[in-house]
Amino acid sequence: GPLPVFILGPCALESEAFAWEMARSVKEIADSTGIPLIFKASYDKANRTSVSSFRGPGVEEGCKILGAIGKELGVPVTTDVHTAEQAEIASEYVDLLQIPAFLCRQTDLLEAAAKTGRAVNVKKGQFLAPWDTINIAEKMRAFGCNSFFITERGTTFGYNNLVADMRSLYWIRKEGIPVIFDATHSVQRPGGLGGTTGGDGELAPVLARAAIATGVDGLFMETHSDPANAFSDGPNQIPLEFLEDLIVNLVAVHHAAHGA
Amino acid sequence: GPLPVFILGPCALESEAFAWEMARSVKEIADSTGIPLIFKASYDKANRTSVSSFRGPGVEEGCKILGAIGKELGVPVTTDVHTAEQAEIASEYVDLLQIPAFLCRQTDLLEAAAKTGRAVNVKKGQFLAPWDTINIAEKMRAFGCNSFFITERGTTFGYNNLVADMRSLYWIRKEGIPVIFDATHSVQRPGGLGGTTGGDGELAPVLARAAIATGVDGLFMETHSDPANAFSDGPNQIPLEFLEDLIVNLVAVHHAAHGA
Amino acid sequence: GPLPVFILGPCALESEAFAWEMARSVKEIADSTGIPLIFKASYDKANRTSVSSFRGPGVEEGCKILGAIGKELGVPVTTDVHTAEQAEIASEYVDLLQIPAFLCRQTDLLEAAAKTGRAVNVKKGQFLAPWDTINIAEKMRAFGCNSFFITERGTTFGYNNLVADMRSLYWIRKEGIPVIFDATHSVQRPGGLGGTTGGDGELAPVLARAAIATGVDGLFMETHSDPANAFSDGPNQIPLEFLEDLIVNLVAVHHAAHGA
Amino acid sequence: GPLPVFILGPCALESEAFAWEMARSVKEIADSTGIPLIFKASYDKANRTSVSSFRGPGVEEGCKILGAIGKELGVPVTTDVHTAEQAEIASEYVDLLQIPAFLCRQTDLLEAAAKTGRAVNVKKGQFLAPWDTINIAEKMRAFGCNSFFITERGTTFGYNNLVADMRSLYWIRKEGIPVIFDATHSVQRPGGLGGTTGGDGELAPVLARAAIATGVDGLFMETHSDPANAFSDGPNQIPLEFLEDLIVNLVAVHHAAHGA
Repeated sequence: GPLPVFILGPCALESEAFAWEMARSVKEIADSTGIPLIFKASYDKANRTSVSSFRGPGVEEGCKILGAIGKELGVPVTTDVHTAEQAEIASEYVDLLQIPAFLCRQTDLLEAAAKTGRAVNVKKGQFLAPWDTINIAEKMRAFGCNSFFITERGTTFGYNNLVADMRSLYWIRKEGIPVIFDATHSVQRPGGLGGTTGGDGELAPVLARAAIATGVDGLFMETHSDPANAFSDGPNQIPLEFLEDLIVNLVAVHHAAHGA
Repeated sequence: GPLPVFILGPCALESEAFAWEMARSVKEIADSTGIPLIFKASYDKANRTSVSSFRGPGVEEGCKILGAIGKELGVPVTTDVHTAEQAEIASEYVDLLQIPAFLCRQTDLLEAAAKTGRAVNVKKGQFLAPWDTINIAEKMRAFGCNSFFITERGTTFGYNNLVADMRSLYWIRKEGIPVIFDATHSVQRPGGLGGTTGGDGELAPVLARAAIATGVDGLFMETHSDPANAFSDGPNQIPLEFLEDLIVNLVAVHHAAHGA
Repeated sequence: GPLPVFILGPCALESEAFAWEMARSVKEIADSTGIPLIFKASYDKANRTSVSSFRGPGVEEGCKILGAIGKELGVPVTTDVHTAEQAEIASEYVDLLQIPAFLCRQTDLLEAAAKTGRAVNVKKGQFLAPWDTINIAEKMRAFGCNSFFITERGTTFGYNNLVADMRSLYWIRKEGIPVIFDATHSVQRPGGLGGTTGGDGELAPVLARAAIATGVDGLFMETHSDPANAFSDGPNQIPLEFLEDLIVNLVAVHHAAHGA
Repeated sequence: GPLPVFILGPCALESEAFAWEMARSVKEIADSTGIPLIFKASYDKANRTSVSSFRGPGVEEGCKILGAIGKELGVPVTTDVHTAEQAEIASEYVDLLQIPAFLCRQTDLLEAAAKTGRAVNVKKGQFLAPWDTINIAEKMRAFGCNSFFITERGTTFGYNNLVADMRSLYWIRKEGIPVIFDATHSVQRPGGLGGTTGGDGELAPVLARAAIATGVDGLFMETHSDPANAFSDGPNQIPLEFLEDLIVNLVAVHHAAHGA
């Protein structure tokens, strides 16, 4: 089967220079490994655990940077939007709008994203069963959007833990809906008394390999040149220095599992 | 201990006449049973499972009706808000702003609600551990709101099921945060292939009794004069005809468990 | 409705003297509060987390002690059995045989217990849905046992946590099966790296109150005169000094919830 | 890395002729694909959902058949044991003793299995966290057994569902404990009102692929020449006719993921 698309980039758009640096590095790796790439970064971390967490440059400034990066490097770009207004603004600059998992059931936001004409990637809520994404797909189609993805990013599993159910990828694809696996958020340990969301960074490559063997249309991984000093989601992001080897491995597993 | 406040009313503001009729009935029952009452109805069901579901009259019209009801009957009123704009509009008419569970982590919405000066009731996300509500409380205080509640409404438990963990009520109260138990949403069976969210209506009184014995600051129950024909959440709402007997029972359990 | 039966006693039969002392104390409290009592203690902790944990005096010696206590104090006694052989031996001395939760699906053990002619209390596995106890009930009836209980003791909820779903009590009773709620094991935090099973002792009275308000046929609580020095399950057992007040409270809640 | 061992065979030892036929077929496939094989069949289904379910020929007869198969075909054989007595009997005929998941915490059974001197494969209880298998490993070592495996076969996930957490394979291996993934039981839908345990047979190959990409020391899959008419676990077993292609695929994924 064809290679899945890789959505890669840092969690947060920490600065303009950082975004450019990450995008150039990721693009180089994509070129050398031959994978289809979408570059990702967030302009606003709108649902951080704690009020004092870093949020980002905001929608206007952030999307302009992403748009310039996409144009210059010839790479599609994506970012997450949190309101109908943001969807409209972002759609002028980015190729793929991402709906955050907590907001996947907000009909007005889905409608606004759908009506921009851009492709839309809806992250599956941690509280949603795989087959419940069919209702999201129906909403998207009803709003005139036929180019959309569902991203699996783990399901609530007791307190402060998520589990990535590989069956979910299979079930959703069977419904004819293209599925992306988010390897770096699926390993989060959400919440906890400390006011930040922890995780298990060494597990993201493991789950990425499992997902690509299972079969996916896309793979989402956050990556950072210096995870220990990332402004958000540090513990889960793939260190940039390991990214190329990981992708080589994932491409090999894909071909072995699903043919060339 | 003092009686918990009862937040009662229909799921949706189906029509102006219906809202008035329900409010008068509920007020009468509150008077005869001696419970503190807040009347509740939603002007917009913004995260319905299916795109074709009934939504409601919208924020302006809905809140005006609620405001008039509150004034005429001398009863505080509440409704749920989904955006910063709605929070501002609703705050002109209602006494208590409710943040939907899926949105409990949207910092901008919490900030907007807090800054209206109204009391705020944040529903705990189905994906949140009890102790993670401490971060919500800290956000509310940071935004200048000191009159807020957390509502427990069940936690994701496998697929298409919620579980109401009674320990949660205890843990959150122990942190000094006033807790409301939502008995009618905690018995939901969210999602499912059929495109609506089902539930177990006969269980809501059972869980209400368990919660009041556990100890709560408030009890939230949706009630309807004709659940079988409700525009939304029909299977879970308490039939109005049974409400008075249920409240008499709950008040007795409260006094037995926690003293007069 | 009639008062539920109370199954009370220490987790482990730590010594003969300790068992007698606990039994006399518990009997006194039962007499003063007017509750129906079954005295409980385990002669073997057969599935401890760690190999070095205390286990107990064994089936012969343990059951003889329990039998003597029951006879002398005029109180029915119960203990848990782990093999067909133990069921037979224990049945000579105790009134109610208890099947441990992990073993609730072992057909041969259920059969052996059923065939002793004694009443049997099957603890519901942490991995079992409430309605799956119907199959256990059918097995018991098929083996000629018509006097049996199902004990709810919490369901696996993520890792190292249990949740007590109060709906379970309602659903199982609705099937005509008498239900006991185990308040002290439902608050366990099973496993953990440390090699012992932890818990939340202050929560057992809270869940007991919730369960009795929900409606049960029996309430199981372990109690100890010195929980901090108990040989097993210390953190979850009700301190004996608080037991009488707790039972007075629970009886009051029962009457308020379900009538005299 | 070296290829994982494959434990393959039918769920139940339905008859002597059937066991031989299955063993010969599976051996042929192992030879042609070059995988290390252990042949598996159960002589007693001791914890069936319903009392009227098929159980098997019993320990003596069943193990003799397995022993003869192993000798004749030159293949190690394994079966599950439910009591200390069975462990001793089975150890005379089979190479690897398997402890059922519900019984993984029964210290006496672990001890009996360990003391036979045979290798032991302990299935991880559906109620156990991955790191809690460290305590099982410590018990095995304390009883003198140093050749043991832990088999992941899914964790309780809400009611009537299991989830296979791929992280578990990684975490347990990291502790130095060899891990087997049971692909056909992990896709079970345990229990349900109907009195049998259902499942999703088409998912077993999917999870097997995910697990082998993740990294395992062994892969357990039940297979049957006619799953629709199997005496037990029919819906989950891999149809024998598809087994060879599946193994070819799994071996390729292993090499791609972990090197030759």
